[in-house]
This record gives sequence, structure tokens and C-alpha cells, in this order.
Amino acid sequence: MTTPLRLGIAGLGTVGTGVVKIVQRRAGLLTARTGRPVEISAVSARTRDKDRGVRLQHYAWEDDPVALAQRDDVDVLVELMGGSDGPAKAATEAAIAAGKDVVTANKAMLALHGQDLAEAAEAAGAALRFEAAVAGGIPVVKALTEGLAGNEVERVMGVMNGTCNYILTRMEHGGLAYEDVFEEANALGYLEADPTLDVGGIDAAHKLALLAAIAFGTRVDFHAVELEGIERIEIADIEQARDMGFRIKLLGVAQMTGRGLEQRMAPCLVPADSALGQLEGGTNMVVLEGDAAGQIVLRGAGAGEGPTASAVMSDVLDIARGIRVSTFGQPASSLAAPTPAKTAAPAQFYLRMELQDKPGALARVAAALGEAGVSIDRMRQYRHTRATAPVLIVTHKCPREALDKALTGMAATGVVEGQPVAIRIEEV
Amino acid sequence: MTTPLRLGIAGLGTVGTGVVKIVQRRAGLLTARTGRPVEISAVSARTRDKDRGVRLQHYAWEDDPVALAQRDDVDVLVELMGGSDGPAKAATEAAIAAGKDVVTANKAMLALHGQDLAEAAEAAGAALRFEAAVAGGIPVVKALTEGLAGNEVERVMGVMNGTCNYILTRMEHGGLAYEDVFEEANALGYLEADPTLDVGGIDAAHKLALLAAIAFGTRVDFHAVELEGIERIEIADIEQARDMGFRIKLLGVAQMTGRGLEQRMAPCLVPADSALGQLEGGTNMVVLEGDAAGQIVLRGAGAGEGPTASAVMSDVLDIARGIRVSTFGQPASSLAAPTPAKTAAPAQFYLRMELQDKPGALARVAAALGEAGVSIDRMRQYRHTRATAPVLIVTHKCPREALDKALTGMAATGVVEGQPVAIRIEEV
Repeated sequence: MTTPLRLGIAGLGTVGTGVVKIVQRRAGLLTARTGRPVEISAVSARTRDKDRGVRLQHYAWEDDPVALAQRDDVDVLVELMGGSDGPAKAATEAAIAAGKDVVTANKAMLALHGQDLAEAAEAAGAALRFEAAVAGGIPVVKALTEGLAGNEVERVMGVMNGTCNYILTRMEHGGLAYEDVFEEANALGYLEADPTLDVGGIDAAHKLALLAAIAFGTRVDFHAVELEGIERIEIADIEQARDMGFRIKLLGVAQMTGRGLEQRMAPCLVPADSALGQLEGGTNMVVLEGDAAGQIVLRGAGAGEGPTASAVMSDVLDIARGIRVSTFGQPASSLAAPTPAKTAAPAQFYLRMELQDKPGALARVAAALGEAGVSIDRMRQYRHTRATAPVLIVTHKCPREALDKALTGMAATGVVEGQPVAIRIEEV
Repeated sequence: MTTPLRLGIAGLGTVGTGVVKIVQRRAGLLTARTGRPVEISAVSARTRDKDRGVRLQHYAWEDDPVALAQRDDVDVLVELMGGSDGPAKAATEAAIAAGKDVVTANKAMLALHGQDLAEAAEAAGAALRFEAAVAGGIPVVKALTEGLAGNEVERVMGVMNGTCNYILTRMEHGGLAYEDVFEEANALGYLEADPTLDVGGIDAAHKLALLAAIAFGTRVDFHAVELEGIERIEIADIEQARDMGFRIKLLGVAQMTGRGLEQRMAPCLVPADSALGQLEGGTNMVVLEGDAAGQIVLRGAGAGEGPTASAVMSDVLDIARGIRVSTFGQPASSLAAPTPAKTAAPAQFYLRMELQDKPGALARVAAALGEAGVSIDRMRQYRHTRATAPVLIVTHKCPREALDKALTGMAATGVVEGQPVAIRIEEV
């Protein structure tokens, strides 16, 4: 094929601008690799008069992204506006209805409407691809969908929100409180307009739900993700975890178990010497575990102009090369409705609590654990500095329900001040 | 398409058996993902009567892999015999001549004949794919060819021979000499029949040459790889390197420079806290650096039945899905003949030598370095235990030629006992 592949780019923020730059600067390379020129026909964004550092005057302008998607000279809609509904969804639907392929970086839209959009795309013979929606520049959608296609996938894990990992590692290295680093990150522009998307784990949970769909051949089920953000992580936990050979990460885990599909996005302790435990700053890491391939670890930049634009281009160039793969790796109509696991797989837990300085206090806590069937792997009581003393406990593997029963029992002892912190220890 | 994709498997060793198992056990999954059944029509191996732990009686048997490749009921030749020439090459050529696709794990064959075979395949409209030839279960060929297709690749690095990394890490953790670990690895069956393929770096260099071709759009040029094995690494160097915050890895590096294409496979020092420096045992790691994506790190099992079979299946399932990508990412005829860089990029170097116990000895060594234009970053002289004292030097960045001049100058001082050890420090 030597017919050009013509793009319509909706959204000219960081990523959209990055895509324009690659198309302009690497034209020869892209043609050499795909066998056909890749061109931009038209663009759309909220503001037209803004210096984005790239030449746009040769491209048609559309105020309305739906009109962009419907243009005769657009073969592929590159949707980079974001937002789960509104213009992004409208433009995507319009493109699909017109039989055009869509490449998007929009994790929220796909996490909520992926099934419908994928079905519509397949019915229309259009491709709908989203490499850039998950873990930025890391080609993880491709690795999972195609690279591990011969595997029954056993587990998918990942640190997929760079901002959260930045905050956690910055707290650790600076000995800083969550609130202080949050403000710092905000001042640096690292946070979304609605920061709970980041620190609440929602953004990362969107990504996890998309990977789970591919991994297990199930419909995207974002609402079933057990979700907990990093807002309640204290520097004390980070330091105590480190002393015991762990680090705290906002970790997503998806696995198919006898109890159903388990999807969790929550702070976890991971061994400090594991690949996940060694991850610093804004970097992302995804771990794919297949029955044949074993454990594959992928690390790279999870955000930013270049990395995300690279992922967008990966999908665009697949289309230019004539590569057609179902959105979630198999026909959308064949994806099973997953049964969410009601309970998470048993795990070890880290507990931190403040114990009152009373005779027999520790014995009562230990008794509460024992009565709930939770046994202790390691325990440390520190010297009293106030009226209470910090106590750390690492449990043996137990179901979360047993732990919750123990926590209730502990509260009833009257010797534990406030609410104990309980964090899952993930085997990675 | 619901027509089955029919495989002919040539070679029923570990990997071939692994492929048979996946096709047999995961039939439903493979059909769901590709939209068509994947079947085995015929197999071929050196010995027919051997229990391989899999049922083969429903497949036709061919003694001659060329006959297997030519069978009417074979759509894809899966070449898992190995060997750069002989039956592997003959069968591959026969399949291509018959217009059939070929999936191979044969790095030696492609490193030496990749250009000819890729050109023949393209002329015949056949696919020739080799995911399993590089880094076992890690989908690195796909990540580089497709995932990073929008990038100008800047550098590709990798620890791609698990046996060498096993030997080096085992030496380190056991405080053992190279010879002892070599014997141990041999007894465990970790080494190739010709162990220089592993420890001499040849196997890893084959893989590097294949990745370089994709990365830089150049013809495979295995003979231009600057090659050095791990046979001369001493436990003293591993320990001294560690004390200075480095680890020794058999590292492959390919980069396009103003001086031409640089391809090196040699022991290097890398920072102990880098991803490459943290790699343990038989695991492989590949680092891809693109101008847009930045640094992508991929880690996984580099060998073994499951991982390698997983990679083979990745190519097979791509073909089943109708995915056609040029062998080296762009038409073979468009690959440029690379100009090999005559000299490697400047680097820091680690030097270890035995210095005679004479007044002014250290000054003379320092003078030899200075005269060659090599300046010292760090230096340590240890206490004399024999007639000589170990001296370690880390140089500032300098060209290899300057270092060689300094080494000649040192030899002329008459105060250095034997030959100094010089190992490149790679910036990773």
C-alpha cells in the first residue's frame, strides 16, 4: 500500500502535540517502516489560537471533534481529548459509525464504555486501539494482547500511576508527610485537575480494568475494582515498611481465581528487592504472568509527551501496516461477563497501631489476632514516646475477613489507640 | 477466517515439545484470540521413537524437515532445530520457496543469513518471524518492531545469555572462581554443546545483531559485533566492582553514532542499583531507548520450554490473526548496509593491576595514564599481601585508544606485574 494513512487528531495538549511532532519529524522513518506515508489531514482542539510549538497551518481545523471524525480525508481518528463521556465519546462513536479506525489514549472512556465501543467498532469493521491508555510509553497492551497470546494469563500487576509513585518515593527519600508532598506535586503540575483521579487510584484502576479484560477475556469491569488510594499512607508506615525490607506501592493486581475475577488497586507492601519494590519516582512498571512465558516485567515512563505519543504512534503504525487486532484481544462479543471475586486471595498483612501503656496490653492484641485465626509472623514494639507505643505486626497469610475480625477484636480490647493501619503484603 | 492455521514443526526438543503442549492444551484460547483453530499437521525430528511426554501420533511424521516444509497441509513451518546452516536453513528455504510462512527460534541462522532469507521471504510473500530467537519469553522483537515503531531508536542494550548471567551472579554470591562455576553449570546442563557459544558471547551477539537490524534499519551484521566473552572475568574483579557500586554483566550494546553502527557484546561494569545491575541468575533483560518513548526495560526468562514456546506462539498467532510485519520491521531490500563504527564511544574504564612494591611505582602508573590523556576518577591501592599490591583505578571518560595507549605505557614502566584487567563501564 502506498496510499497515505490520514489522521485526524482531536486534542492538541501535550500528547496531541507530541504526535504531531513525530509525524512531522519522522516522516521518512514511518514510511520506511509501514510502507506508506502517514499524514495529518485535520486537527481539533478547544482553543485554536495558541502557540503549541508545532506548525499546524497545513492541516484543516475543526472546532467540533465529531465533524473531524466524519471528514472524508480522515482514515483514523486519534482521540486525545480525554474525559469518559462528552466530546471524546461522541467523536469516537462518530468515527466508528463512519467506519473509521480510532486510536485513543482515553482510559476513562474505555474503562466505562469499552465494551460498547469495541462492539460498535467490530460491527463497523473499524479498529479501536488504546496502547497509550495504559502505562504511557511501555508497549504493554501489545505485549499482553499479542506477545503473550499463547499464554493463559495468571496475573497482571502494575504500578501505573506515576504521580502516586512519585509521591510515595518522595515521601520516603525526603522523610516528608503525604500532605507536604501532595502540595509539592500540585505546585509542579503533576496532578490531574481532579487529584483524586491520581491519588485516589481511579486513573490506575481504569488501566488495570483494561488489562484485566485482555488478560482474562472478560468484559471491562471497572466498577468491580476494589479501590483504595494513597491518601492515608503515613511516612511512619513507609519507614517501618522499609525497616522490615518492604516498600509501599500503589499496586494494581488482577487475577482469575476460583472465587472469580479479582481486581484490586490499593497500597501494598512489596519486597524492597523485587522489581516492583525498586521502582522510583514517576516510572511505571507492569508485570505480566503467563503459564508459559512466566513473569515478564516491563518498565518505562508512564506519562509525558514523548512516551505517550510513542504509544499512540504504535497503534497508528499498526493500522498503517494493516495489522488488525480486536480491541481486547478477541471479538468483543466473545468476552465473558466476569464474576467478581467477593473476597481477595489470602495474604500477609502489615499492621501498625498505637498501644496504650497498660500491663497486658500487648497480650490482649495478640489474643484478638489469635481468636480471629490470624497468626503472627513478626512483631515489634517500640519504646513509649507518648502515652502510647507503636507496635508493628506482620501476620502470616490469612483471609482479609479474618484480619477484619481481628481488627474488630482489637478495637474491643480498649488498649489500641485510634484505628490500626492495615496494609496488604503482595507476593510479587 | 475460520480455516485452521496448520503448522509443521521441525525439531522436537524442549522448545518444540513446548509448542506442541500449548497447541494441544490451549486450543480453545488460541481460537478465541485469533478467530481460527491452530493445528499441527506434521512434525519432524532426528529420532522418532522417543517419549517426549506429548501425544504425537495424530500428526504426520517426516524424517526430512525439507519434506515437512513442502507438505500441502502445512501453512507455517515452525523451525526449532537450530544450527545456522544444514537442515534448518534448507527447510526454511524450502518453506519460503513454497510460499509458506516461517517462524523460527534460530538466532544463529538469522544472524548469518537473515538478509538473504528475509529477501527471499518477501519476494515469495511469506512471513519470516523470530520472536523466540531473542531473549526467550520476553516479547522484545515485537516491542521494538511494533511498539517503538514511531521512535528513532537511540540504543539497544541487553543481558541476553542467561547462562553467562547465571555464572557471573553465582561467582559473586558464592565467592567462586569462574572455572568452578563453569563446571557446575556444565554439570547442570546449562551450557550449549559448544560452550563458547554461551561463555564466548557468540549466542548473545547473534541476538544483538538481530535487534540492531530492526532498531537502525540496517542489514544484520553479526561479523561486525565487537565480541568478548566472560572467560577471563575473575572473582576479584566481581568483588572489587561491587565494592565500588558496580556489577559485571555480559552486556550487549548497539547504537548508531556519527562514527557508524556500534555493536558490542562484552563484559561491562554497570551501576549496581540500575535495572541491569540488579539482574540475577538466568534472567534476561533488554533495554530499548527511543527518542520519544525514552527508556523501556523488559525483563523475563531468556530460555526454557515455556518461555521460548510462548515466543514461538506469539509469532504463530500473529500469522493466524493475519498480522504481517517485515522480518526486520521494514522491507529487507530497504535495509541499509551499515558502516561499522571503527572505535567505540568513549567510556569510563575499570582497571585492576598488581603493582610491584617499589618506591614510586604508583606514580609511574599514574604518569602513564596522564601521558595517554587518561585522567583518574577514583583509585585504590590495597595493602601488599605478596610481592605485589592490587591497585584499582576508575578512569574518567576516555576513548578506548587512549586507554590502550595508557596500558602500553604502564607495561613499559616495569612496575606492573602481568597484564592489567580493563573493563568498560557502561552508562545505563
